[in-house]
Amino acid sequence: MREVAVLGVGQTRFGELWNRSFREIGIESGLQALVDAKLASADLGGLFLGNMASGSLIAQEHIAPLILDYAGLAGRHLPAVRVEGGGASGGLALHQGYLAVASGLYDYVVVGGAEKLTDVPDTVGAEIANATADHEWEVVFGATLPALWALVARRHMYLYGTTREDLARVAVHAHEMGSKNPNAHYRNKLTLEQVVGAGPVAEPLGVFDCAPLSDGAAAVVLGPLETARRHTDTPIRIAASQVACDTMALQHRADPTTVGSTVAAARNAFRQARRAPADVRVAEVHDGYTIAALVSLEDLGFVEKGRAGTEFASGRFAVGGSTAVNTSGGLKAQGRPFGAVGVAQVVEVVRQLRGEATGRQVADATLGLTHDLGGTGATSVVHLLERTN
Amino acid sequence: MREVAVLGVGQTRFGELWNRSFREIGIESGLQALVDAKLASADLGGLFLGNMASGSLIAQEHIAPLILDYAGLAGRHLPAVRVEGGGASGGLALHQGYLAVASGLYDYVVVGGAEKLTDVPDTVGAEIANATADHEWEVVFGATLPALWALVARRHMYLYGTTREDLARVAVHAHEMGSKNPNAHYRNKLTLEQVVGAGPVAEPLGVFDCAPLSDGAAAVVLGPLETARRHTDTPIRIAASQVACDTMALQHRADPTTVGSTVAAARNAFRQARRAPADVRVAEVHDGYTIAALVSLEDLGFVEKGRAGTEFASGRFAVGGSTAVNTSGGLKAQGRPFGAVGVAQVVEVVRQLRGEATGRQVADATLGLTHDLGGTGATSVVHLLERTN
Repeated sequence: MREVAVLGVGQTRFGELWNRSFREIGIESGLQALVDAKLASADLGGLFLGNMASGSLIAQEHIAPLILDYAGLAGRHLPAVRVEGGGASGGLALHQGYLAVASGLYDYVVVGGAEKLTDVPDTVGAEIANATADHEWEVVFGATLPALWALVARRHMYLYGTTREDLARVAVHAHEMGSKNPNAHYRNKLTLEQVVGAGPVAEPLGVFDCAPLSDGAAAVVLGPLETARRHTDTPIRIAASQVACDTMALQHRADPTTVGSTVAAARNAFRQARRAPADVRVAEVHDGYTIAALVSLEDLGFVEKGRAGTEFASGRFAVGGSTAVNTSGGLKAQGRPFGAVGVAQVVEVVRQLRGEATGRQVADATLGLTHDLGGTGATSVVHLLERTN
Repeated sequence: MREVAVLGVGQTRFGELWNRSFREIGIESGLQALVDAKLASADLGGLFLGNMASGSLIAQEHIAPLILDYAGLAGRHLPAVRVEGGGASGGLALHQGYLAVASGLYDYVVVGGAEKLTDVPDTVGAEIANATADHEWEVVFGATLPALWALVARRHMYLYGTTREDLARVAVHAHEMGSKNPNAHYRNKLTLEQVVGAGPVAEPLGVFDCAPLSDGAAAVVLGPLETARRHTDTPIRIAASQVACDTMALQHRADPTTVGSTVAAARNAFRQARRAPADVRVAEVHDGYTIAALVSLEDLGFVEKGRAGTEFASGRFAVGGSTAVNTSGGLKAQGRPFGAVGVAQVVEVVRQLRGEATGRQVADATLGLTHDLGGTGATSVVHLLERTN
């Protein structure tokens, strides 16, 4: 299998971009990535686009060719494919781009993620988020995505003694990091008291335990590792790309505090890369809800099950800790434009591995991990990224 | 690049399946394909699923893990990815499955296509179909998908002298073939007079020039060609798999009677397979509208631009002709469950190449083509399939 590298990255600001269209932000991030990769559009071989719900959000399906078209590339008749897996859409698109280059059929591709969530009322956006849970077995009975994650939180508290403050620290950390990221949706800091004291969404989760609905786009250029030096001084090798799934409905899992898809994707990724969690210096982990970050850190193998809250409190996952987590601000503060999230995670880790994460740089980062998750974990995608010099 | 083969096929009946759910039909076709491929589910490596609009149609995104889950496979935590490109979603899913096996990261995968279109009112279904055209530049001004194809038909008539009867013959042929296919949505035959005399949808296209909205699912099992003999006596090699795109809006094309994505995908596919259109004995071609079939036959290289109507009348594309087209009944008669179409095309061609197309078998079929198209051709997918013994 051919080795694949990330050659360039691009990203728009995340937030409420009411004056910008879906196609505009999609193109901006893609062109940034092409420029960053010093890739002429004549050398581009295709586009893989992660997007969750453009049909419901902007009455437009079939959006991969739309982005190529508005980037002025329709005349080249390139391949363009949209991929969807709820909140994991961006990570899945990266997996498809990886396979395309690894197979040898494609040389250089753009992997993009884009979503325009704030042009519909928040209630509509929330309903669309619920469409990533099991409609027939969860949503029709009134379960919402935050309510399902609240059940996970309650169970985690019951089994492992995780506290309200343990949850809240994830949000405090996210906003601390978001304050250092010019692309973040939220750049304000939060105190523990503010998070704990905020109004409830689904107890024990308050409003600051839940990531926002955001607009935004991110893109990366992938190409063969063997020719990567033509494009960048610091090629980032994709050491592993793995997707795994679990039951759609939370109630069908033996243990709701373990996301089997994350466990499997991480295990397979570390096996593919012949590395271990302890080797990872920087990680972007799904924190759509604060409890999701704790569960994910455990399922990825960074800490034993039930210990993530305590370890988070110890500073282990801060910039100075052994594995710096969500230095972008995560979904909580950088923002949650569903299909863009998984790609933006790679943008952040690549910046860290290149040493370009000004103001939030992790020292000696050579191996990074991204973890993209859809719904309550029916899909997880794990990538391992490695600096090659 | 590793050679890839189709090892098994499965398909539900297409039609108004009001008593069957999306998940039910998706699973039925997948299990059929696994049984046909003599593949134990323990050897399955992943699922690639084509679906256009489950979010809008059944309020459920994130459907690839849903299908795995309800097939009883959630515990294996396999990868599952949904792919969308309007009416070309099924063909795109096949392309992704092909890349997965060709890359070497996956061995055996199921590629499925499924859509449940008839549980919403027809007006909603039509709006969803329109979402595959350009929303900002076409749909908001009142253009519908049949209206756009009607423009293509008018222009084709003007430039090349194509007649109303030339269009109608495509539908007559489709229903003739559909009458021989037990899975077809429509099994009644039509006369030329019935098609020409039917009520208009968007002139010159009448109601019998337009494919129906259908429910249905289809699936194939892909694996490495080198081990294909363990699974089937007649492995069908994927000789080419190519995707190409064009502008979203019809008005942005230099010539609306030429679909650039089809031209490019076909050219690249014939180049990849080192074959020519004259080698193709059996082809499933997009006939969502009768004019689309004529345009596609020209753009695929089977006939000179403007000559498809005349050649169709000559019987060249009938079962006894040099290239038998849409022996399944095509979208017009077999049906149009958007995401399933491109996969069902492969099911039909595989059956033809194996000699299993009872009642409609094409003699000496060794090379077949499938052509899946989205919207007015912003996406086209072309596969070449070859019998290896």
